Amino acid sequence: MPKAPKTAITPTRAENYPEWYQQVVKAADLAENSDVRGCMVIKPWGYAIWENIQRQLDAMFKATGHENAYFPLFIPMSFLEKEAEHVEGFAKECAVVTHHRLEPDGQGGLQPAPSAKLEEPLIVRPTSETIIGATFARWVQSYRDLPILINQWANVVRWELRTRMFLRTTEFLWQEGHTVHASEDEALAETRQMLEVYAEFAEGVMAMPVIKGEKTAGERFPGAVATYSIEALMQDRKALQAGTSHFLGQNFAKAQEIKFQNVDGELQFAWTTSWGVSTRLVGGLIMTHSDDDGLVLPPKLAPAQVVILPVYRNDEERANVMPYCETLKEELASQQYAFETVRVRIDDRDLRGGDKRWQWIKRGVPLIMEIGPRDIADDKVFVKRRDIEGKGEAIPRDEVVGTVANRLAEIQQALFDRAVALRNEATVEIDSLEEFEEYFAERAPGGLAHCHFVDSPTMEAKLKELKCTVRCVPLDAQTESGKCIFTGEASERRGVFARAY
Amino acid sequence: MPKAPKTAITPTRAENYPEWYQQVVKAADLAENSDVRGCMVIKPWGYAIWENIQRQLDAMFKATGHENAYFPLFIPMSFLEKEAEHVEGFAKECAVVTHHRLEPDGQGGLQPAPSAKLEEPLIVRPTSETIIGATFARWVQSYRDLPILINQWANVVRWELRTRMFLRTTEFLWQEGHTVHASEDEALAETRQMLEVYAEFAEGVMAMPVIKGEKTAGERFPGAVATYSIEALMQDRKALQAGTSHFLGQNFAKAQEIKFQNVDGELQFAWTTSWGVSTRLVGGLIMTHSDDDGLVLPPKLAPAQVVILPVYRNDEERANVMPYCETLKEELASQQYAFETVRVRIDDRDLRGGDKRWQWIKRGVPLIMEIGPRDIADDKVFVKRRDIEGKGEAIPRDEVVGTVANRLAEIQQALFDRAVALRNEATVEIDSLEEFEEYFAERAPGGLAHCHFVDSPTMEAKLKELKCTVRCVPLDAQTESGKCIFTGEASERRGVFARAY
Repeated sequence: MPKAPKTAITPTRAENYPEWYQQVVKAADLAENSDVRGCMVIKPWGYAIWENIQRQLDAMFKATGHENAYFPLFIPMSFLEKEAEHVEGFAKECAVVTHHRLEPDGQGGLQPAPSAKLEEPLIVRPTSETIIGATFARWVQSYRDLPILINQWANVVRWELRTRMFLRTTEFLWQEGHTVHASEDEALAETRQMLEVYAEFAEGVMAMPVIKGEKTAGERFPGAVATYSIEALMQDRKALQAGTSHFLGQNFAKAQEIKFQNVDGELQFAWTTSWGVSTRLVGGLIMTHSDDDGLVLPPKLAPAQVVILPVYRNDEERANVMPYCETLKEELASQQYAFETVRVRIDDRDLRGGDKRWQWIKRGVPLIMEIGPRDIADDKVFVKRRDIEGKGEAIPRDEVVGTVANRLAEIQQALFDRAVALRNEATVEIDSLEEFEEYFAERAPGGLAHCHFVDSPTMEAKLKELKCTVRCVPLDAQTESGKCIFTGEASERRGVFARAY
Repeated sequence: MPKAPKTAITPTRAENYPEWYQQVVKAADLAENSDVRGCMVIKPWGYAIWENIQRQLDAMFKATGHENAYFPLFIPMSFLEKEAEHVEGFAKECAVVTHHRLEPDGQGGLQPAPSAKLEEPLIVRPTSETIIGATFARWVQSYRDLPILINQWANVVRWELRTRMFLRTTEFLWQEGHTVHASEDEALAETRQMLEVYAEFAEGVMAMPVIKGEKTAGERFPGAVATYSIEALMQDRKALQAGTSHFLGQNFAKAQEIKFQNVDGELQFAWTTSWGVSTRLVGGLIMTHSDDDGLVLPPKLAPAQVVILPVYRNDEERANVMPYCETLKEELASQQYAFETVRVRIDDRDLRGGDKRWQWIKRGVPLIMEIGPRDIADDKVFVKRRDIEGKGEAIPRDEVVGTVANRLAEIQQALFDRAVALRNEATVEIDSLEEFEEYFAERAPGGLAHCHFVDSPTMEAKLKELKCTVRCVPLDAQTESGKCIFTGEASERRGVFARAY
């Protein structure tokens, strides 16, 4: 048997996908576990990706009329009690603040001071519908005050038992949109609009193809009337829910008393929505594009789109190479790609060239450019594209500058195309339970299965047995008569089934 | 007695300064109290100011080599215990998480689940030296890993008994820089550099003059070797500490075991710094520039630098006025001021013209432009500068566009100059205790008093009696022989004394 080529990441995806994921997070210097159970430290390279996500999403929110605001970290316990499904969904996994002071415990340590016990415990927000709803109730009097279109960038806490960096952590960073409307139609339109925004962002910026769909009743956000999501397929053929948009009907308006006087002077409950994406997107990004050499970043999210590596053996060569690199950097950085200037770094650290190159490969930089005395003599730059195999090629310097934006655009597109191809390859229509069981059998690769279904306990039991889930009913699913593969009942549209994160 | 002119804010500054402050916060729609004791809701206009602060400060941090990262919200209780002064400083006012689940209390409500009590309580971070220090200890092995230059944008919680919006709240937003260095000199240089960055930002962006100085021992950050601050003077002649930069020596390195191998291969403790500014800056901004008509914003921080108010009486006039306003908006928005494009809004809400104008005056927009059919006929725009009295003036349209950047720059400068003048007027040198007591007597206006002093219990007692504080020893204070006004001891430099927030 031929020996497998050496890869930067051990194990490879094929050998052990979950462990490969952890090793990519580590090798790319994205994050690490902290001293607090389930909470991670997001390191500069990982945080810079999140900043790029934030900046571009924020612009999309603002372009659709939303404004940012900030609401309290804490939620009074009694607020959770007001919406029955909501409390059911979040009370089991929340951080509870009970005291506001520590005091010496008499044994050299500290303890929560009994005299500083809160009258009412506070919950660290797992999501903010209740506290924001209570605020909105004060802001809304008349239909003239509507719509309210607010977004918040914040940290939230859900006490997860099994955590995995970026994908599921006790504390995570996210944005949560919260809006109030005078009519059901307007609130529904907002819910769908934000799902579109998420899909556009996922595909256009993250180069991650997604299915837009509606969740089944059992998968709805606690308290929502309808939950929509974008679902992506990872390289291990498991699905990842990457963003959700909830139509809350009047449930939270009733729980929090968000009422307004309509045009006819009648007092009525408002209609609300909420929608969010989180640092989980970084996990999705990793699992969509990365390979056995580490992270692969779509240019639109790369903290550095180009890294220049000067190559020299002595001071004389350095004096020749460095100014050349500096000038190149400036020229590249003055080019525009995707409405921003190109992000370029020079890495002149005192490290072996090979080590440096591998470091940037593992960190997923789209273009690595190496420049030594011989390249300068030829007025060429050695360019390596992260997304394709091979050592790279020498390209005339002027061409490198003039084509850098195109090259980045090509990489962005190539990553998307590759992910679409993988998803297509892993997508099937299944019309019988036997075929379904085979497709999701323990050692089968699985993927996305489009099947007729009617939600039922029979289905739930079968899915549980197969460790499979129903992801959503795609919004673009055609109406077609069929039979539920689990019960034989009549069905009008196919849903998407997959193993999932 | 002549009747005082009607003002938008009641009471006026002269009548009741603290209440005036609250009313400006309300009238400018900056923030409001929330349902959680001591926590505020930052409303869109207030948050947009904070976003402008963040964006510009962040660029300064990055320009000085810092990278952003994110660390856990929670700090294990035992971490606080490791630095004796630090625990003393923060244990008395912190939110303590003791449980990770709620359960029904049997009476229709909820309670922290006894079975979900944490083995070790967690503190909601009041500041992050301990948890970040523990992380840095893992990152640093050799002198080659240094310096580490990290910043974090985050929320923090300090359980304050008496709160006031922006100035002192239980939860607040801030940035905290944390750096690690191989030498004392380098750490000191970093501490001073960040103080400079804060001063540059305060004066250049907020138009708020500040004194850079070192805090006395009693006013140091808990655990610091030296604390530096920028101190501003508010219109009521009370000082506001607006930012701090701490030289932590090896205290936290020892508590958290941040060690490295130096060039000679010896293991030694590192030197660390930390520095921060918070949403308190918004409070300082309000109290530096605002007047009895509400908020006054320096252009560099205004969410909208120009608001255009179309004026029309019927649909016909509207059809004439609106396109003119739209075109003007686009042309203004394509102008550059302070390295950004000019921020312009049109307010076409269905409200009385006077109400709208007052709303934007109260919100502090630097330039309000009104345009009606007659202005259009003259090809003029009616321009009102927020920072100066009077109704405004009609200016030829082309001139308005061509000079908007200059006009904003003028306003920015005028606000700074006015604040400097006020501070100069309220600054004195005092050389005797009698004079000092008179200057800070209960009904005296007070201000900034530069006095010779030697820190002592006598001084502390006198300051407490007068409700006065020592702010700092200015870095630019000249060496001059003098005598402590409290004890008569020899002193080499003057410190600054003031009542303070």
